[in-house]
Amino acid sequence: MDFPAYYRDAFTPAAEIKNRLVAFQERLTEEQIDAALIHQLTDLYYLSGTAQQGFLFVPARGEAVLLIKKEFERAREESPLNRVEPLPSLAGLGDRLRECGCRIPARLGLELDVLPVGTFRFLQKVVPFEEGVDIWPALRSLREAKSEYELELLKKAGAIAADVYREVTAFIRPGLTEIEVAGWMNYLAMRRGHQNILRSRGFNSEIYNWHVVSGPWGTLPSSIDAPFNGVGLSPAFPLGAGLNPVQAGEPILIDFGTCFTGYQVDQTRMYSVGKPGAEFLEAYEALKEIEAEIIRHLRPGVPAESLYAPSLEKARELGVAEVFLGQPGRKIRYVGHGVGLESPERPFLAPGHDYPLRAGMTLALELKIVLPGGAVGFENTVAITEEGVVKLTTADETFLVL
Amino acid sequence: MDFPAYYRDAFTPAAEIKNRLVAFQERLTEEQIDAALIHQLTDLYYLSGTAQQGFLFVPARGEAVLLIKKEFERAREESPLNRVEPLPSLAGLGDRLRECGCRIPARLGLELDVLPVGTFRFLQKVVPFEEGVDIWPALRSLREAKSEYELELLKKAGAIAADVYREVTAFIRPGLTEIEVAGWMNYLAMRRGHQNILRSRGFNSEIYNWHVVSGPWGTLPSSIDAPFNGVGLSPAFPLGAGLNPVQAGEPILIDFGTCFTGYQVDQTRMYSVGKPGAEFLEAYEALKEIEAEIIRHLRPGVPAESLYAPSLEKARELGVAEVFLGQPGRKIRYVGHGVGLESPERPFLAPGHDYPLRAGMTLALELKIVLPGGAVGFENTVAITEEGVVKLTTADETFLVL
Repeated sequence: MDFPAYYRDAFTPAAEIKNRLVAFQERLTEEQIDAALIHQLTDLYYLSGTAQQGFLFVPARGEAVLLIKKEFERAREESPLNRVEPLPSLAGLGDRLRECGCRIPARLGLELDVLPVGTFRFLQKVVPFEEGVDIWPALRSLREAKSEYELELLKKAGAIAADVYREVTAFIRPGLTEIEVAGWMNYLAMRRGHQNILRSRGFNSEIYNWHVVSGPWGTLPSSIDAPFNGVGLSPAFPLGAGLNPVQAGEPILIDFGTCFTGYQVDQTRMYSVGKPGAEFLEAYEALKEIEAEIIRHLRPGVPAESLYAPSLEKARELGVAEVFLGQPGRKIRYVGHGVGLESPERPFLAPGHDYPLRAGMTLALELKIVLPGGAVGFENTVAITEEGVVKLTTADETFLVL
Repeated sequence: MDFPAYYRDAFTPAAEIKNRLVAFQERLTEEQIDAALIHQLTDLYYLSGTAQQGFLFVPARGEAVLLIKKEFERAREESPLNRVEPLPSLAGLGDRLRECGCRIPARLGLELDVLPVGTFRFLQKVVPFEEGVDIWPALRSLREAKSEYELELLKKAGAIAADVYREVTAFIRPGLTEIEVAGWMNYLAMRRGHQNILRSRGFNSEIYNWHVVSGPWGTLPSSIDAPFNGVGLSPAFPLGAGLNPVQAGEPILIDFGTCFTGYQVDQTRMYSVGKPGAEFLEAYEALKEIEAEIIRHLRPGVPAESLYAPSLEKARELGVAEVFLGQPGRKIRYVGHGVGLESPERPFLAPGHDYPLRAGMTLALELKIVLPGGAVGFENTVAITEEGVVKLTTADETFLVL
C-alpha cells in the first residue's frame, strides 16, 4: 500500500514500539498477568503504531500478535510489529488467536476501565477466558512518562498552538461571538495539521478545544471538574464557547487544545479588546507567579500531590487565595494534570496523588482565578526532565490587550 | 442561574421530555425491567434535557429522579423534570437513591452497550443490584423515531450545512490541502453554532466531520466500515482529510457532518477545480438516480433491509454495479444508516435489518462509488414521514466544477 510522504514520515519508529512493548511485558510479569488483549484505539496505537480496528495480544513473555479486522494491509504497513495477521470475523477471534499460537490464560488482561460491558461479555464468549483483569494501571504507568520521540511530537503540537495563538490576535474584535473566535482558531490549527479530535479516556468525558469564554458569562459552572465552564452552545454541549459576543474591555480566556499525530497540549492565554479592569491583569500576573513556584518544585522523585500546597501558599502570599481555583465553595482541588495521547492522564497535582513524579511526564498546569466580571487563566504544558522543566507550549505569555 | 437568551431558547420543552419518558417507561414495562439507571450523557440529555454529570433513575411506573453530581443548579434549570436532586458523592449514589424514594430492583436496567466494566462494577457495589440488564434496545427503539421538535433541530443543522457547502466554493483552489478546506468548513460551521463534537455510541467509533478527500489518495481504505477512508493526518487518525493538496481536475469529495443542539446531519457533495474526467460526473449522476430509487421505496412499514436490493439493482441497470459501494472485494453492505443524537444509529438499510421503517426515522443515504482516480459520493440526510420523504440536507446537488 502506497502513502504520501508526510503520512509515512509519521509512522512510529520500530525501536519505539519495541521499547514500549518490553516495558509493558515487564509490568505484566510484575502483576502476574500472563497475557493482555488490547482493543482500545489509543492503546493499540501506542503499543503497535497503528489505530486500525483490531486486537493486540501481548503475552508476558514472547512475541505480540496483532489481529486486524480492518484494514489489514494498512495495519501491516503502519505497524513495525513482525506478527500482523488478518481477523476475518470478530466471532472467530478466539480461533484466530489460537491459530496464531497465542496461549489464552484463564485470567486475561483487558482494558476494563474503558471496555463496555457488552463488548466484555462478547469477548468472554468468543475468546473465551475465565476472568478479566484490568491492565490499565500497568499500561498507564508506562504511558505517563513520555519518550524523546513522544516529546518531539508534543513540541510540534506546542509549535502549532503558538502560531495559532499569535495569528488569532489579528482576528479578535468586539461583536464576534466566542464560537466564531474558537472556529477561527480551529481553522488556523487544522491547516497546520491539528487533529480535531482530542481523545479522553473517561466515560462521558468529552475533550473539546473551543474553550473561548469571556466576561461574566464565562464564569458559569457546568458539568466538568473545572472552576468555570462557560455557557456553551446549548444544553446538549453546555461547555466552552457560546454564541455570546465578546465585549470591549472584558477578559477573553482562550484555553485551546492542540493535537498533532495523536499528542495533545493544553495552553491558556488571556486577551481583551481595549484595556480590561486592573483586577484581571493583576490576577493574571499572580497566576504566572504561581506557575513559576510550581515549576521550582517540579522534578523527578517528588510526590505529585506535593505541588498542591505550595501553589495555595503562593496564592495566599499574593492575596488571591479566595478566588484561586474557583470562587469559594466551587474550588477545584488540582493545579495540574498529565496530558499526552489522552487528556487528562496521570499525574494529577492534587491531594491523594502520592506517587512520585518521573522524568518524561508531561503536565498541563491549569491555573485559574474566577472574578465576578470574568475568568482568568494561565496554562502551559510542560515536560519534567532530568535537566529541569521544559515548556512545550511557547505562545507569548503577555495578557494581550488588542 | 442566569443564561443568555439563545441558550435558554435551546432548552428541551417539558412536553417533549414527558413524551419520551412515558414511551421509555412503556418499553421498560414490556421488557419487564422494573427500573433503569441512565448515565451516558447522550441518553441523559435525551431523557432529561440536561447533559450535566449524573444519573437518571427511571422506574417502570412512577416519577423519574435525576441525581446530579455536577452542576446541580444548572441541571435544575435545564431539565423540566420535577425531581432534580444533588448527588454529593458517587460512592453515596445508592443511599441518595433510597433517600429519594427510588426502589432499586434486583435486575437493574443499564446502558450495558456503552458502560465500561469498571463503572459497572463500581455501580454494582455502591447501588447495589444483583443483575444488570441492557436497556439500550428499549431506548434505541425510542430514539430512532424523531419527534417534530427533533426534526426541527435536524433541519437547522441541515440549513447550517447548506450555508457551509455554498460558501466553501469560493475558498477551494488547487494547492490547498484537504485539511485546510476541511478546517475552513469547520470555521464556517462553528460560527453558525455547529457543535464540533459529533457523538457516536460505538466503542472505538470516532465520528469526525473533516472527510474531505481528493484524487487517488482519497480512495485509500482504512479502519472504518466505508468503501474508502482517505489518507488522514497520521496513523494516529488514519481517516479523512490529509495534508495532500487538492489538484486541478481531480474529484474532491466533501462528506461533512454538521451538528446543532446535539443533532447531526450528514451530507456529501462533489467538487472539482477545472473539469474532471467524464467518468466522475457520470458516476455522480448515477448516484443521484440510485438515491431517487431508494426514496421511491422509503416509507413507513417497509423493512429496513428491503431498500438494499433495489439500490444494487438500480446500480446494475446504470452500469455502475462493479464500482458501487466500493471496489470489488471491498464493498460495504449498506446504503444508509440512521443519524440523530449519535451516528450511526438504527435503521441500517442493509441485509439482516428486517425491522420496519417508521415515520420520524432519519437516515443518511450513503451512496458512494470508487473509481481508480478518485472516490465519488452523494449523500443526503432524509426524514421518513407519513406524507413522504423530506430532505433535511438541502445544499445544491450539482457536481460543482469551480
